[in-house]
Amino acid sequence: MTTMRAVQVVGYHEDLRMTEVPVPEPAGPFDVVVKIGGAGVCRTDLHILEGQWAEKSQVVLPYTIGHENAGWVHAVGSAVTNVKEGDKVIVHPLITCGLCRACRSGDDVHCENNQFPGIDTNGGYAEYLRTSARSVVRIDDSLEPKDVAALADAGLTAYHAAAKAARRLTPRDRVVVIGAGGLGHIGIQVLRALTPAEIVVVDRNADAVKLALSIGADHAIVADGTQVDQVLDVTDGQGAEVVVDFVGENGSTAEGLAMTRRAGDYHVVGYGENVDVPTIDLVSTEKNVVGNLVGSYNDLQDLMALAARGAVTLHTQTYALDDFQSAIDDLNAGNVRGRAILVP
Amino acid sequence: MTTMRAVQVVGYHEDLRMTEVPVPEPAGPFDVVVKIGGAGVCRTDLHILEGQWAEKSQVVLPYTIGHENAGWVHAVGSAVTNVKEGDKVIVHPLITCGLCRACRSGDDVHCENNQFPGIDTNGGYAEYLRTSARSVVRIDDSLEPKDVAALADAGLTAYHAAAKAARRLTPRDRVVVIGAGGLGHIGIQVLRALTPAEIVVVDRNADAVKLALSIGADHAIVADGTQVDQVLDVTDGQGAEVVVDFVGENGSTAEGLAMTRRAGDYHVVGYGENVDVPTIDLVSTEKNVVGNLVGSYNDLQDLMALAARGAVTLHTQTYALDDFQSAIDDLNAGNVRGRAILVP
Amino acid sequence: MTTMRAVQVVGYHEDLRMTEVPVPEPAGPFDVVVKIGGAGVCRTDLHILEGQWAEKSQVVLPYTIGHENAGWVHAVGSAVTNVKEGDKVIVHPLITCGLCRACRSGDDVHCENNQFPGIDTNGGYAEYLRTSARSVVRIDDSLEPKDVAALADAGLTAYHAAAKAARRLTPRDRVVVIGAGGLGHIGIQVLRALTPAEIVVVDRNADAVKLALSIGADHAIVADGTQVDQVLDVTDGQGAEVVVDFVGENGSTAEGLAMTRRAGDYHVVGYGENVDVPTIDLVSTEKNVVGNLVGSYNDLQDLMALAARGAVTLHTQTYALDDFQSAIDDLNAGNVRGRAILVP
Amino acid sequence: MTTMRAVQVVGYHEDLRMTEVPVPEPAGPFDVVVKIGGAGVCRTDLHILEGQWAEKSQVVLPYTIGHENAGWVHAVGSAVTNVKEGDKVIVHPLITCGLCRACRSGDDVHCENNQFPGIDTNGGYAEYLRTSARSVVRIDDSLEPKDVAALADAGLTAYHAAAKAARRLTPRDRVVVIGAGGLGHIGIQVLRALTPAEIVVVDRNADAVKLALSIGADHAIVADGTQVDQVLDVTDGQGAEVVVDFVGENGSTAEGLAMTRRAGDYHVVGYGENVDVPTIDLVSTEKNVVGNLVGSYNDLQDLMALAARGAVTLHTQTYALDDFQSAIDDLNAGNVRGRAILVP
Repeated sequence: MTTMRAVQVVGYHEDLRMTEVPVPEPAGPFDVVVKIGGAGVCRTDLHILEGQWAEKSQVVLPYTIGHENAGWVHAVGSAVTNVKEGDKVIVHPLITCGLCRACRSGDDVHCENNQFPGIDTNGGYAEYLRTSARSVVRIDDSLEPKDVAALADAGLTAYHAAAKAARRLTPRDRVVVIGAGGLGHIGIQVLRALTPAEIVVVDRNADAVKLALSIGADHAIVADGTQVDQVLDVTDGQGAEVVVDFVGENGSTAEGLAMTRRAGDYHVVGYGENVDVPTIDLVSTEKNVVGNLVGSYNDLQDLMALAARGAVTLHTQTYALDDFQSAIDDLNAGNVRGRAILVP
Repeated sequence: MTTMRAVQVVGYHEDLRMTEVPVPEPAGPFDVVVKIGGAGVCRTDLHILEGQWAEKSQVVLPYTIGHENAGWVHAVGSAVTNVKEGDKVIVHPLITCGLCRACRSGDDVHCENNQFPGIDTNGGYAEYLRTSARSVVRIDDSLEPKDVAALADAGLTAYHAAAKAARRLTPRDRVVVIGAGGLGHIGIQVLRALTPAEIVVVDRNADAVKLALSIGADHAIVADGTQVDQVLDVTDGQGAEVVVDFVGENGSTAEGLAMTRRAGDYHVVGYGENVDVPTIDLVSTEKNVVGNLVGSYNDLQDLMALAARGAVTLHTQTYALDDFQSAIDDLNAGNVRGRAILVP
Repeated sequence: MTTMRAVQVVGYHEDLRMTEVPVPEPAGPFDVVVKIGGAGVCRTDLHILEGQWAEKSQVVLPYTIGHENAGWVHAVGSAVTNVKEGDKVIVHPLITCGLCRACRSGDDVHCENNQFPGIDTNGGYAEYLRTSARSVVRIDDSLEPKDVAALADAGLTAYHAAAKAARRLTPRDRVVVIGAGGLGHIGIQVLRALTPAEIVVVDRNADAVKLALSIGADHAIVADGTQVDQVLDVTDGQGAEVVVDFVGENGSTAEGLAMTRRAGDYHVVGYGENVDVPTIDLVSTEKNVVGNLVGSYNDLQDLMALAARGAVTLHTQTYALDDFQSAIDDLNAGNVRGRAILVP
Repeated sequence: MTTMRAVQVVGYHEDLRMTEVPVPEPAGPFDVVVKIGGAGVCRTDLHILEGQWAEKSQVVLPYTIGHENAGWVHAVGSAVTNVKEGDKVIVHPLITCGLCRACRSGDDVHCENNQFPGIDTNGGYAEYLRTSARSVVRIDDSLEPKDVAALADAGLTAYHAAAKAARRLTPRDRVVVIGAGGLGHIGIQVLRALTPAEIVVVDRNADAVKLALSIGADHAIVADGTQVDQVLDVTDGQGAEVVVDFVGENGSTAEGLAMTRRAGDYHVVGYGENVDVPTIDLVSTEKNVVGNLVGSYNDLQDLMALAARGAVTLHTQTYALDDFQSAIDDLNAGNVRGRAILVP
């Protein structure tokens, strides 16, 4: 049996540990084993170590962490027809059943029988990852696994919300993006590609606001306490038809709803605080509060089509797999620009 | 100048007063004067007398109350072509401009320049009402103004929410209706006409639950504190794809969200308390909270089409216009079965 | 190896022949073998014998015919989780791959790698049929395989067209159904369940017209050469918002388009002649011509939900499997009322 | 009474004639008189002179021709609130009633009581034009009437079709535009602004193909008889999800349908020949044939939003109003590059 290096959770409030484990093999007919080319280091990984996911995921320790993965197909199960050994792929974060009503309708993120590698089963801080034929998306020749890995989860979430938001947007509409950080700056690029609406970006950080303008925002507002008034100023005093909130805390939900026009949609993507709104306000203005989860397999295919033509790009900072602790430490310390990626 | 009887608000926390005022005449080219055949007495009218609308409406006292009206066209302005004297009509509660973006898109309830007779200008507790050509809907020969008047606002609100909810419902879906009272029992009839989904009704009142079953509900649940569990029981433990909440207070919002399936819609129609929900819950389940205002002119046309074929009926209790105080008192005391209607 | 009886095509322009063949076994991980409870005899089967499908299907003779099947699960492949031995099921006519874009989007009838048992591989005029986990729909305890088998293809096609048509229909709209025969009378029942629009049925046969009224049509018109005028008469001279044509020959396409209102949809379901329409007419009236294929797996689930509550029923005439030639002869001679079903 | 110059149709198969007529004044409460800044000269104007519209329009000669107009508001009726004297406006080609179901739903081009200045009443080859408050759209300060006049009809038609087509297009889809001439090159710009799909343009003219690439097309194909195969080559042999045909003659309809993928939409905009397609083909591929008329008032607002930010531009060749005959002659002789515009 061949072995490989894998970075594992061995205990909560303990450091991750590099271990030697067997290389996974296809067990079921639709299994696909991917040789990892890049694995994103996500803030969720920090939360896992703090034990925040322990009860929810019911995962048994030790296990391999890492849920943002891309690489090359290494081995496939007997019934796999959509990829073959050597194909360059990005990995959708969920393994889905393909048979429940959600899967049969293209809404596979609501699969009733899913697994989530890196969260409730072995993930991608390793040389190889076992996933499913239903989870791998071939990527364009021009793209490299380590460059797109972070689009597998963070980017996919931003794409999903932006694409849902874009459906109703016309050339006369405005869309406000709250938060131009990790997810938000992907969301802005996706909105620019998908909609003719004016894009207004709100962020506390002047650099993020500057970046937003360079990647497609039409207006950018530094959140200095007057951000609601500033948004009303650029929307005829009415607010925007759609607001996409990538923050979800520190008052952004009340502000986001206040920036939303009558009959408009307020999209929740980031989370932290409660949405707390009088029913009379929802009724008299007919606003909607729209939840957003990670994107579907189709969303990931669409996002990869945008990435292939350069419409969505991402800044990354790579680390050797052996340097996983540095990546974790840098993320914890706020020293990662863009996204940290482990490369085995 | 001809005069007429009109019931007016003369002061807050004072009784309404019957007055003699001039019969309104068409002033603008699109004005329509309607001879009232029935005017609904609504709980909102009680709130107006308590002064709850004073600041919001900025209405100048005295003025004529009453916003649920039907009757016959009495006189029309120079540019009116869609109705003529003698036509039997129901009156949409808003006077809208026809020129703003909302009006040009069929979303006239979001008109930027609207008037609301009975709230911010003279209404229908009177012999005649001035409204607009854009607000009158001709009704079927088989319908009488006094029988349909209450559909003009309460019924229209229920129609609008039910029709929005129905758009996504399929034969395999379930829709929960919370509250089978005034609005709810119209909503149930509309859902029965518009959707093949299973209808589950929840109400505290055993009689209301019984009525619900007789007008089209498939399941009816008495809200005895176990209503969330009972809904989960009849929805495979998953909740309903759509929940329409005609109550909006006393805990119904948290219960309504708990009855809503992943990726489902929770519609707010009744109001009172706050929707207070963690963003993490909206994100992880991808649920939507949908605001609902009164229906559009098109909604009223659709509702009258259902009424014409008997698909939506309403129990009413009529009072002579001179007996307006009895109607108000009965409503206040909870002694009105169905809807109180004033008939001049 | 166990054997079974199967009715096979042994040559074009030759009679079908009863043969003894091996009982199929699950070969792939997602295979499901169904014990046939009823197999519909369809006009397409007659066309197969005439050789009309030979080139298109490229099927190798001899093979077992029959594409409308229902029964009980007999055996399942290693990866099947949605059904188990003994489950009562109806069989979607296509075996689909689950991995192509169409399958991932719920549009599985456009699967790029499908098989069609009874057309291009062994079908259901037999004791057992091999299909896929992706093709079986569990049916309600109250339903019997022989009673619903014909809904698997003919009924599913009618459901699909009616459900697509219903999406835009409101209480003020009219929908015309051309042809109240095999497919049409299912379509009428589905429209009645799914839409509040007025249903106008047109058929040459006075009995079919009478049946239409009994199952939910609001108006019924005998096609005596004046049918276009009669439809215009009951639609304010404007035509219907939607027309669903289950005939598609003998002039029905030109008539159907003439019955369609400006900005309306003309749905093609039945086929035979060409749609031949001046582009200037399509442009000046902005009408749409909508193609319709058989329904998806989700459509079949929805149809079974309607069948379970008795909203869609079908008249059938059963034959023992050994009497297959009588069924074929009766169909050829026009002596089948409803649908002929073979029962092994 | 003040008079003005107006170019009138005085007889069919006769030259247009410059005449002195009274300046129009607001007659009804919603009338708006526009001082013409630019009037587009359209091929339809040539057809009018040939008598092709005589029977259809029932216009009484003499009357003023010209249906593509922009300018400044000169006078308004008593009830006009959306524009005031001096406003710079483009004029929607139809005068609509605002009261019929189509108008109340935003589909005003299907208004049951419309007028069409330049076709059935006096148009814009003149110093002033009478239209309606419902037909004028204020344009951005950066735009000049003579530069946008041709967007009022030709451009609006292209916008409408492109916007309808764009609704279903995703980053993985392809859209084929047949014809990159007058309407087509607007359509390409609109598609580029509204959709992330790949745009494939087909035209017989190598210069038009070159222009297409410079304004946003991803692929451009010279129609040399192999255009269907070339489209299949760049669409994986499957055809495009959407085809928009701005030609509609000389075989483009059969070719357009052949370029359309299964379950795809073929949009008819240009006209001339018949769409002639076997019903079996529509059924087995589930393709749709979509009619397209001129755009709505909302479409014109949206198009002006795109024009204001430079996303849609148009080449024009201006003529003094007195030189109307030169413009007509040049158009007839094929000597107009872009659009001919009369400037009073």
